[in-house]
Amino acid sequence: MSATVSDVAGWWATSICRMEPGIVELRGIPVQNLIGSTSLAATIWLMTRGALPDPREAALLEAALVASVDHGPQAPSIAIARMAVTCGIGLNNAIASGVNALGDVHGGAGEQCVELLNEIVDRESGGLSLPDAATAVLAEHRAKSRYIPGFGHRFHPVDPRRDPLLALVDQAVTDGVVAGRHARAARAIEAALDPVPMNIDGATAVIYAELGFPPPLARGLFVLSRSVGILAHAWEESTEGRRNKGPIPPSILPTYRGHTPAPGPPTQTQPKPPE
Amino acid sequence: MSATVSDVAGWWATSICRMEPGIVELRGIPVQNLIGSTSLAATIWLMTRGALPDPREAALLEAALVASVDHGPQAPSIAIARMAVTCGIGLNNAIASGVNALGDVHGGAGEQCVELLNEIVDRESGGLSLPDAATAVLAEHRAKSRYIPGFGHRFHPVDPRRDPLLALVDQAVTDGVVAGRHARAARAIEAALDPVPMNIDGATAVIYAELGFPPPLARGLFVLSRSVGILAHAWEESTEGRRNKGPIPPSILPTYRGHTPAPGPPTQTQPKPPE
Amino acid sequence: MSATVSDVAGWWATSICRMEPGIVELRGIPVQNLIGSTSLAATIWLMTRGALPDPREAALLEAALVASVDHGPQAPSIAIARMAVTCGIGLNNAIASGVNALGDVHGGAGEQCVELLNEIVDRESGGLSLPDAATAVLAEHRAKSRYIPGFGHRFHPVDPRRDPLLALVDQAVTDGVVAGRHARAARAIEAALDPVPMNIDGATAVIYAELGFPPPLARGLFVLSRSVGILAHAWEESTEGRRNKGPIPPSILPTYRGHTPAPGPPTQTQPKPPE
Amino acid sequence: MSATVSDVAGWWATSICRMEPGIVELRGIPVQNLIGSTSLAATIWLMTRGALPDPREAALLEAALVASVDHGPQAPSIAIARMAVTCGIGLNNAIASGVNALGDVHGGAGEQCVELLNEIVDRESGGLSLPDAATAVLAEHRAKSRYIPGFGHRFHPVDPRRDPLLALVDQAVTDGVVAGRHARAARAIEAALDPVPMNIDGATAVIYAELGFPPPLARGLFVLSRSVGILAHAWEESTEGRRNKGPIPPSILPTYRGHTPAPGPPTQTQPKPPE
Repeated sequence: MSATVSDVAGWWATSICRMEPGIVELRGIPVQNLIGSTSLAATIWLMTRGALPDPREAALLEAALVASVDHGPQAPSIAIARMAVTCGIGLNNAIASGVNALGDVHGGAGEQCVELLNEIVDRESGGLSLPDAATAVLAEHRAKSRYIPGFGHRFHPVDPRRDPLLALVDQAVTDGVVAGRHARAARAIEAALDPVPMNIDGATAVIYAELGFPPPLARGLFVLSRSVGILAHAWEESTEGRRNKGPIPPSILPTYRGHTPAPGPPTQTQPKPPE
Repeated sequence: MSATVSDVAGWWATSICRMEPGIVELRGIPVQNLIGSTSLAATIWLMTRGALPDPREAALLEAALVASVDHGPQAPSIAIARMAVTCGIGLNNAIASGVNALGDVHGGAGEQCVELLNEIVDRESGGLSLPDAATAVLAEHRAKSRYIPGFGHRFHPVDPRRDPLLALVDQAVTDGVVAGRHARAARAIEAALDPVPMNIDGATAVIYAELGFPPPLARGLFVLSRSVGILAHAWEESTEGRRNKGPIPPSILPTYRGHTPAPGPPTQTQPKPPE
Repeated sequence: MSATVSDVAGWWATSICRMEPGIVELRGIPVQNLIGSTSLAATIWLMTRGALPDPREAALLEAALVASVDHGPQAPSIAIARMAVTCGIGLNNAIASGVNALGDVHGGAGEQCVELLNEIVDRESGGLSLPDAATAVLAEHRAKSRYIPGFGHRFHPVDPRRDPLLALVDQAVTDGVVAGRHARAARAIEAALDPVPMNIDGATAVIYAELGFPPPLARGLFVLSRSVGILAHAWEESTEGRRNKGPIPPSILPTYRGHTPAPGPPTQTQPKPPE
Repeated sequence: MSATVSDVAGWWATSICRMEPGIVELRGIPVQNLIGSTSLAATIWLMTRGALPDPREAALLEAALVASVDHGPQAPSIAIARMAVTCGIGLNNAIASGVNALGDVHGGAGEQCVELLNEIVDRESGGLSLPDAATAVLAEHRAKSRYIPGFGHRFHPVDPRRDPLLALVDQAVTDGVVAGRHARAARAIEAALDPVPMNIDGATAVIYAELGFPPPLARGLFVLSRSVGILAHAWEESTEGRRNKGPIPPSILPTYRGHTPAPGPPTQTQPKPPE
């Protein structure tokens, strides 16, 4: 089975971008038709969903993207990028080291919360009452993990980003932009967890779920949003002239909790294997 | 010299984000005041520059960010992310591997072009005519490299993104939003290089330079823009079910150009050092 | 609850390395006692396990590390690093983009295979016959995934690395260095899957499991091993002068499978949200 | 100019690895001939240099690789990997984020030092006395940077790894394994900088230069060495159960040095561009 050149072209087939000499089309739209007429948020929607959004959908997406850009240097992704940029690498590399850390725990809560919300909405569609659906889904989740993604925060008793985001969702429901079922599901979780409040991951998950983004894209969208903060912090750090910035001031030495060397000659060492 | 806890807090000092229980402020603005009222592009400006832009400045920035989101799988950053996501890692990790490749050659042309434009504008301010300034700066650059960043393209005889971006800059000059000196410097380079045209890196560099972004941020802004395309491609690839996608179809084996093994017993191998 | 400086030192506590002015100790051994007397493989064991290995244990580990260094540019990790280094980033960055792709699918088979082998050995200890234990564990695994980690290969009918690695394990069993239960478990899987043979991930998993490495370290050790090949390929590519190497020759354009632009004016575009 | 399938195979041509069904050859040596007979250090040499080393060359390389494996959590690469692994990503991803930070400042000193040593040796070959060559090269370097790569240390008055590494080089010179010119060049720098001593980067640079490694590979070899420590620390951290480990204890908030919000209504915000 030998491949042909068209197999090679097909190996990299895509429906996102058509690029030929003199032509760049994104999802079938010549890029020149987007420049100056389409917002970055609407372009993010176009690229990930395949068509342009309604302006009010784009506005809701944009609010979620703006809300998550930064949470300060206590976030590992931010601290990593700040340390990395002092090591003599480019801003793109420092951003990469930071974005790379937006994993299941640091950047996955939104994705996991969308899955929970979808599951609750499905149960409700199946005939359960919303409170019963939320209780059932929470119980099943708790059997797997003690963390409820999108609820509670180690720093904030109340997350200042929750209310304005939910207010925008409620308005969008009133305007008929979104159905509001995921927002109600999230509030049902909040009621069941009372007094543990919804956090930024929960509030943005409501928006992404209401807008129909698949769960993994909730993480992808968070990556785009947090990349803004990561860039800003890496840039600020790069202007301060530190070299090889460690996590704590150099005069503080990490506690050593291991063995202490045996006294006398290094009898605990040994020759390499006589191969 | 022993550090105190306030030295530790100061080690991570920042002017970007104030985070305290119940409080998230970005550049001195409570995040809740940004949600729903400020565009993602304006937020990028706020985070990297320290204050909100004029709406027309934000519009110009947004056009440049939209223009660079994608150029298809022939771009290493896109191909890398598509391959990476088939290896069993998260979208954040695949994006990181791709963004990491936006180095001096793949992602640095905008930064380098802003430096060229700034240098030409400085020479002009110093009394040189614009053509003479461009010629002098180009000559000095050519002594270091044969590549003029921001001009010429291996695929496009004319880059379809050039004209609409420059048209927006010209309108902004007319409207008094930007001064237009960097745009004129870029056109002076284009005239000197004729028929080699300005490319997307050059056209966006004009915008970033006109808006006053320092050269390294031109790369940083490109990272934010291209991350959109990288996400879209990694997501598309992840939905196609490939595992360990190589660069070419598996039936095509890379050409081997090295030694051929000596016949007979493996006399060319040798024992490990008898240490 | 305010932290003290010793809390800060404790935040970074480690039992791996003691570093003070004039002192570098690894797992309680002054580094100068390791230099020149201890092999890299034995040092890898020391750092990950906490004490130096028996020379014959180190020899077995070293054989597995040598076996996995490279499998050519069809491996995404290798192709990624080769493309990345042509983008104007450092060897460390190119290696990082490649290593980053050694995820569950590309680099996790060894880890998953160690888990399977441990499970089979546990069932056997519980009283099942080895064939029954293997059959039961395989059935449970198949219920979750159609891929049996460590067995079968898309390129090799027989993996040339299997036999020499298993021969070293058998010798180590004869010498009383390892117990051989995981090797027998792997052969029981091979018998059950006949004619699908054990591959490099399976053969190295046998060694790592026999030597008592926890499953996640099987991936970690593979990362160290494959990093050698990634470095070699990134270095070779960097000497060939390509810039922005795409996955296929530039004259081959990826197949476009998406929408075609609507004719006439760009009515498919739309203004940005009028917020 | 249309490509053929053999152009595609040639696009990925390599002299490092020949891979065909049933065949894996590294630099012309069947991998099965390396397994069990060749050390990891000798394999690193084979892969990067193209042929196997003399056992005494491999021993010298191995000593340098062992010496650099770790320097504790104050090194950004180590701290980054430890933080990253608490964010819900794999060991391979955490290692990648750490290795990515081994840039010009954190991982490039060895590479830069090899360049200095080569330059001094060249000047000496050109007829200068060694002290004059060292003085001249140092003066030229100081004109570009105040940091002399490979000399001085922010933690160690005397680096405990210097003496044992230089002792091995001296023995290798006595044994006729290496010429010793780069070692003498390094000591000439040390004499000129007295009392600033050679550090680990300088001592390993001497070894890499004496063994004939090109400067960029000095960084590549350091990446392989430090990856061992990065893996060990990421693994230790992953066993301690922290989630989203920040750089300092959560109760210490980074100092905020930016604007304070204006009082009253959020007049400092503004609508998005009315496009």
